[in-house]
Amino acid sequence: MTKRLLVVGGVAAGASAAAKARRTNEDVEIVIYEKGPYVSYGNCGIPYYIGGEIPSRDDLFLVTEQRFWDRLRIDVRVNHEVTEIKPDQSTVQVAGPDGSFEDHYDRLILATGAVPLRPPIPGIDSRGIHTLWTIPDGDAILDMVKTLSKDDPVCVVGGGFIGLEIAENLHRRGFQITLVEKMDQVMPPLDREMAYFASEHMRSKGIRVILSDGVSSFEGRDGTVESVVLESGEEIAAALVVLSIGVRPETSLAEKAQLHIGPNNGVEVDSYMRTSDPHIYAAGDMVETNHCSGRCPVRIPLAGPANKQGSIAGHNAAADLHPEEPAKEAFRGVLGTSIVRVFDLTVAATGLNERAAAALDYAVQVSHTISGHHADYYPGAQDMIIKLIADANSGRLLGGQAVGFAGVDKRIDVLATALMADMTPYDLEQLDLAYAPPYSAAKDPIIVAGMVAANVMRGQYRLLTLDDLEDGLDGCQIIDVRRPDEFEQGHLPGAVNYPIDEFRSHIGALDDQKPILLYCAVGQRAYTAYRILQNHGFSNLYSLSGGYELWSGTLGDSGRSENG
Amino acid sequence: MTKRLLVVGGVAAGASAAAKARRTNEDVEIVIYEKGPYVSYGNCGIPYYIGGEIPSRDDLFLVTEQRFWDRLRIDVRVNHEVTEIKPDQSTVQVAGPDGSFEDHYDRLILATGAVPLRPPIPGIDSRGIHTLWTIPDGDAILDMVKTLSKDDPVCVVGGGFIGLEIAENLHRRGFQITLVEKMDQVMPPLDREMAYFASEHMRSKGIRVILSDGVSSFEGRDGTVESVVLESGEEIAAALVVLSIGVRPETSLAEKAQLHIGPNNGVEVDSYMRTSDPHIYAAGDMVETNHCSGRCPVRIPLAGPANKQGSIAGHNAAADLHPEEPAKEAFRGVLGTSIVRVFDLTVAATGLNERAAAALDYAVQVSHTISGHHADYYPGAQDMIIKLIADANSGRLLGGQAVGFAGVDKRIDVLATALMADMTPYDLEQLDLAYAPPYSAAKDPIIVAGMVAANVMRGQYRLLTLDDLEDGLDGCQIIDVRRPDEFEQGHLPGAVNYPIDEFRSHIGALDDQKPILLYCAVGQRAYTAYRILQNHGFSNLYSLSGGYELWSGTLGDSGRSENG
Repeated sequence: MTKRLLVVGGVAAGASAAAKARRTNEDVEIVIYEKGPYVSYGNCGIPYYIGGEIPSRDDLFLVTEQRFWDRLRIDVRVNHEVTEIKPDQSTVQVAGPDGSFEDHYDRLILATGAVPLRPPIPGIDSRGIHTLWTIPDGDAILDMVKTLSKDDPVCVVGGGFIGLEIAENLHRRGFQITLVEKMDQVMPPLDREMAYFASEHMRSKGIRVILSDGVSSFEGRDGTVESVVLESGEEIAAALVVLSIGVRPETSLAEKAQLHIGPNNGVEVDSYMRTSDPHIYAAGDMVETNHCSGRCPVRIPLAGPANKQGSIAGHNAAADLHPEEPAKEAFRGVLGTSIVRVFDLTVAATGLNERAAAALDYAVQVSHTISGHHADYYPGAQDMIIKLIADANSGRLLGGQAVGFAGVDKRIDVLATALMADMTPYDLEQLDLAYAPPYSAAKDPIIVAGMVAANVMRGQYRLLTLDDLEDGLDGCQIIDVRRPDEFEQGHLPGAVNYPIDEFRSHIGALDDQKPILLYCAVGQRAYTAYRILQNHGFSNLYSLSGGYELWSGTLGDSGRSENG
Repeated sequence: MTKRLLVVGGVAAGASAAAKARRTNEDVEIVIYEKGPYVSYGNCGIPYYIGGEIPSRDDLFLVTEQRFWDRLRIDVRVNHEVTEIKPDQSTVQVAGPDGSFEDHYDRLILATGAVPLRPPIPGIDSRGIHTLWTIPDGDAILDMVKTLSKDDPVCVVGGGFIGLEIAENLHRRGFQITLVEKMDQVMPPLDREMAYFASEHMRSKGIRVILSDGVSSFEGRDGTVESVVLESGEEIAAALVVLSIGVRPETSLAEKAQLHIGPNNGVEVDSYMRTSDPHIYAAGDMVETNHCSGRCPVRIPLAGPANKQGSIAGHNAAADLHPEEPAKEAFRGVLGTSIVRVFDLTVAATGLNERAAAALDYAVQVSHTISGHHADYYPGAQDMIIKLIADANSGRLLGGQAVGFAGVDKRIDVLATALMADMTPYDLEQLDLAYAPPYSAAKDPIIVAGMVAANVMRGQYRLLTLDDLEDGLDGCQIIDVRRPDEFEQGHLPGAVNYPIDEFRSHIGALDDQKPILLYCAVGQRAYTAYRILQNHGFSNLYSLSGGYELWSGTLGDSGRSENG
């Protein structure tokens, strides 16, 4: 009898699982049960569709139901919700438009994804408050948008990547945007000093960004939202609220079926994407997998991993049902690599951030470097900042973050590749990356980041971070080695200006009994000064990680002509 | 007595060596002897300066002589040629503007670079024939350019990256350009079917590209070039000739000093960049180092490696002279990663190409994949083609090539990182790369390339290349699985059209005793058809690597809407 493979959920992981299952096994029956009205769409594109950058709603649909059947003999049933799994009978209960029925499976793949959080804040059920996750969510927001006037106030709650994307896209439509975030930063995958550039850039474009403040209630009239009241007491007018404060895994079916749930509330799977029931696989936003650099279980709802996991689950489930038993495939894990465009800025992260690495008790080493995204002598070079997080004990890179105007996506993908290979800063500084003036520099920003982190790791260079600075610098001699004109435009409190090109003449004025903090615009001149002092026997030396540009939160090109 | 470190040559590796030596050792005397009039300039920028993209000649100078002294206490002597090294006396003979003198060294760093080839072709010494390597070369070409009129004929001899860059930049100035290349392709780091896109793109912009033809003589009047006569007999009018047919390492000093020379005519160095004389280091275009993926000695004159090698040679030489003997640094080797912009096309390569891998007797596996550079549903996605070269025995990636309109630099750097980590296709397909619609797709082109190469490596998928096709396809059933409208616009000779969405209904018409070659636009639909047939017991199956787009040499978006 023909074997039957059921897939529950058909958006990202589910669609990917079904397609791969068919390619592995032509003889199995494959059915996708999708609770919602659509399968296989690009939900990461919805904010851009709302903003008008993606002109047609049709563009968002990747594979139609018809094509699933014609090309892949996959039977897609939208508006069909699986309401229960009975693992002991190998059946599911399905509620469809024509009533409820039971279906049998030989293998089941769960891809029910995640659902946006909607905490029980007073007034949250008012009209005009929307989450943004599915096509119907996008349709509802766009319907609402069409009823609003330009300059109407819109409040986006939550500063993760969806919040940032929808804030930008609604700003593009002309609304007055306020973004509210409970944490003291946007973009939680990044550390605060890096995310700062994103929130400042949004502010510079006219978006009001409120940090460290949560929503206490939604107020309105006749059940329609009119304002958002914050924990601070402030009231923000809002004709539309987009709530993007995170998602929770949709595990209710899995829980009822008594599948194991992991420490992060996702369904536990092995590397073959198999749940605790050997006939049931799971993939996508609902599962926990291995964090490749953190080496711990994590649940990271992102499309890239969901696709890979779906494909692997689909292959393995279909391989189970294949008479020739093809070899299984194993999922390696995730790094949580993520990227967001914030107007003309790009903000990206991979692996562990500093907070997460510290929470896992790694001996955290961080470094920040700033360099032009291509050769400085070629017109248009723009500064980019890279943060590396490494384990000082093993040398292994744990994570990386990058912010800048061009070429950030390239550097974060290089770092993601380096993390997958367990590379160290010593590996990074030796990468043979492609150099031609329009693309890069002879010392690519990644090479520069690797060199500095490697110097720190060798014990030849000590960096202070902005957090260290906040802890105070009692008795520290702060030396700014930039040019006098740069110094006059702004400098660290208490800093003395010894420009690098006359630095040696000031050495006698320095007290080698007290700590010395050196800085310049981006760190290159400070490094030279550091080495000069080190060679003169000074040992109580520090350089400011990321230099004045990070401290002041302003990426520029101030350091570049000086960096030879 | 103060130790003395001499650096011979001050452009890329030499400048880098001297700067790093100073940072390692403040107490050593450092002198750079540079034969030419300038140190530390961005020679990779010269073509762009000639074309006018880099507006000012001053922009090309990275570190001035004054700054070398002020900041680094490095004594730069331009127009000083070292004419002899006497290793047994630790001295060099120097010819300067004020005569010849002897200088002593404790450590010597050779960074004499390379010189452009000027073979003894009749007429090669005519006025108007220029090589392009140094600032004076660039000045001479620009002086010449200013005497020419728009539409004057210019001949570029040599289709390497400098040839391509100067052809584009002179075309930008309005000249009629003919590019002549003796090989049957431009851009030798790439394989022919990939380089084809570059030459075709140049042709589409109005540059005449002549392949497989060499220069037999330069003809002219009164010692000034007027035409280039090719081996085919054709005569090309030329008011200016730029000769960019390669470089040879400048090893005459090293040879006279009896330093060991390697199999590629470069100076032999160990991983510390030390020559056969323990007091003499060497770095840059003149040395041979390890090819990281080929695991053989190579000489690859590129700026990225030259900088790294210089820095390492400088550190190690200065460390030798430091009382505390800091740890030495070791150079890992090169991949020859290179990239060139050809108008709006980008062409890039890393590691071994197919020819080189075969010459090293690897069990070469190649695959070509074509995918949009970002999410297809986000406006502006453009096809990019990636070629992977892997060792079928070990699984190790040996090289990668990429051609496309956007995002090529990112993918080649990811591949270069993967090569440095000895990754396999199985690693590539699992990379967790950054995905947001403006930057990438849920399945990044690198992931797609990894998936296909991994399927080949697993023995589940067999590809035919264009070379295989040239060997003939006797008795092969050629099946085009594209839509009828695509098929009608052009197809492989002898192909039958079984569109993928009705493919199953044609299976009965196929003869499983004869080989079957499947293809579509980029390979995705052909893969689906392949798996269908495989599941039906067919075993004599092939898919066309790179599909119709590679075969026809036209990157488009024809396959994309079909690729779900």
